Amino acid sequence: MKKSVDFYFDFSSTNSYFAAFLLPAICERSGATVNWLPIHLASIFRGTGFTVTEMNAPKSRYLWRDHQRYAEITGLPFKRPSRFPIKTSIALRGVLAARRIAESASAEFSQAVFRAYWERDEDISESRLIVDIAESVNLDSGPFLNAIDSDEIRSELAAITARAIERGVFGAPTFFVGNEMFWGKDRLDLVERELHKV
Amino acid sequence: MKKSVDFYFDFSSTNSYFAAFLLPAICERSGATVNWLPIHLASIFRGTGFTVTEMNAPKSRYLWRDHQRYAEITGLPFKRPSRFPIKTSIALRGVLAARRIAESASAEFSQAVFRAYWERDEDISESRLIVDIAESVNLDSGPFLNAIDSDEIRSELAAITARAIERGVFGAPTFFVGNEMFWGKDRLDLVERELHKV
Repeated sequence: MKKSVDFYFDFSSTNSYFAAFLLPAICERSGATVNWLPIHLASIFRGTGFTVTEMNAPKSRYLWRDHQRYAEITGLPFKRPSRFPIKTSIALRGVLAARRIAESASAEFSQAVFRAYWERDEDISESRLIVDIAESVNLDSGPFLNAIDSDEIRSELAAITARAIERGVFGAPTFFVGNEMFWGKDRLDLVERELHKV
Repeated sequence: MKKSVDFYFDFSSTNSYFAAFLLPAICERSGATVNWLPIHLASIFRGTGFTVTEMNAPKSRYLWRDHQRYAEITGLPFKRPSRFPIKTSIALRGVLAARRIAESASAEFSQAVFRAYWERDEDISESRLIVDIAESVNLDSGPFLNAIDSDEIRSELAAITARAIERGVFGAPTFFVGNEMFWGKDRLDLVERELHKV
């Protein structure tokens, strides 16, 4: 069986953005595939009792500076979004709709949404933009729009999110190699290490 | 002027433990010195509005696993303490008392306290243990005991902690190379990178 990494992400998570562009190369080197799993981070926080009161001003200030440094080091473009955090449910359902239409489309679609938000500061809460992004990666807007608003896709997003909480996910990005869980882009080196073991 | 890294730490912080043993080698390679700066983390949390409600059960479970993995990779001994968190003010004042007696003693004393807590699960809130540790690194217990309970040392610890908050510190370990701040053992590579710039 081919090795794979379960990649739980939300578009509003800065570190998920970085991981979305760094993980594929790691998996390729290890002959593994990426399983793109969109999760609704706000539900995860509610489900695990996280409150954002801990994100005090000094920490928040530092983290933006830290992200900027990371972008410089990795060479990934990065622009602090003017809308943050942002509603991501339409975009997250878009990942599942894209996969429904073409198995391989979820990766390309997800990366395109991440770019729109973290590189070009676009409003990814708008369904019009999400449809434009779908078209830009060659997805037919008719079937895409039908899927994105369907009960099936809504249930699928809720199920993936609920399953993530069951597995112990409390934030994003989170990676699983088998049952071993890794949280944060700072653990991508350990994800790679784990892939060499299995 | 010799390069230096301001190293803010508390003994109750797992990642401060790791940093206390990894940072000196990094500084040595870069011809820099470590400036050991004990801070009272509970005061930092109060001062920055942090609440521990965010440390939900899944996150806490994961972090212990993550620490264990890190210990295996670095080869540093690690035992989850049976008393956690723990009162550290006596031990923190011990660092300042040690420095008062012998400038170079703060490093050795600090590492010895970290080992007692994170390797041997000892009760570092007890002043008797702290005095034993001082003696084990060749500090005279008389002057040490006088210093540790003095108003001067109490004020010094409060002043270092207040200054840390002023500089933007919100957690431990935190490192400064000049005015550039780095939070967490996961940024030790960037600390080293920064040392090469200055």
